Amino acid sequence: MNKIEHIGIAVKNLKDSNSLFAALFGKEHYKIEAVESESVMTSFFKCGPNKIELLQATSKDSPIAKFIEKKGEGIHHIAFAVDDIEDEIERLQREGFKMIHDKPKKGADNKLIAFLHPKSTNGVLIELCQDIDD
Amino acid sequence: MNKIEHIGIAVKNLKDSNSLFAALFGKEHYKIEAVESESVMTSFFKCGPNKIELLQATSKDSPIAKFIEKKGEGIHHIAFAVDDIEDEIERLQREGFKMIHDKPKKGADNKLIAFLHPKSTNGVLIELCQDIDD
Repeated sequence: MNKIEHIGIAVKNLKDSNSLFAALFGKEHYKIEAVESESVMTSFFKCGPNKIELLQATSKDSPIAKFIEKKGEGIHHIAFAVDDIEDEIERLQREGFKMIHDKPKKGADNKLIAFLHPKSTNGVLIELCQDIDD
Repeated sequence: MNKIEHIGIAVKNLKDSNSLFAALFGKEHYKIEAVESESVMTSFFKCGPNKIELLQATSKDSPIAKFIEKKGEGIHHIAFAVDDIEDEIERLQREGFKMIHDKPKKGADNKLIAFLHPKSTNGVLIELCQDIDD
């Protein structure tokens, strides 16, 4: 794992939270992107080598809607950048970690992604992500 | 804010979680440090330009014990690296953010630190930290 690629934060209102995080970082978000498979609208901020991804549910069935209902707004997941996501999934499975996705899938921000199950990682929802070469 | 300096993760048993995160990162923690003012024992892992700080309470009155009692194990805070923490506190207060500490204090890992109140930041507990020059 090369670095924290981003931290995902569940928010109720993306417009309000964009203003809040713009004030926090002293600069605007650089991208808004819908991820239809997860029923979320996302917004990205850069912070040096890292990013913050704000996530607002676009339907009641979205994982983000369920998270906010259960725990309230706040940090939803940590994503780590990896060079080869398939190798990393295999390595983590050999170490005994449980994957939510045992094959990578297309995520936001031009990435291949896979989530680990938080039951095997101290309650922390962890995402692996690898840049997709254009 | 220059980067995510670290993510703080509340854990029940530092020894067990050290093993778990060593397996996750494929390398051991580089430091164990007690922070007596917060009644916590901490352990640090490097991940490229970022760190993960595991936090175990050493008394029932520790903020980490209260966090785990309320929310369970998991992500506790995000810390951002800043060049001048006093300037940054002033800037954030002008922007309307509430500080838990309006003056920096000594934290773990040779840093000056100050926390923002999560009520003003979408439920996210945010720490500012500046390296102390030796």
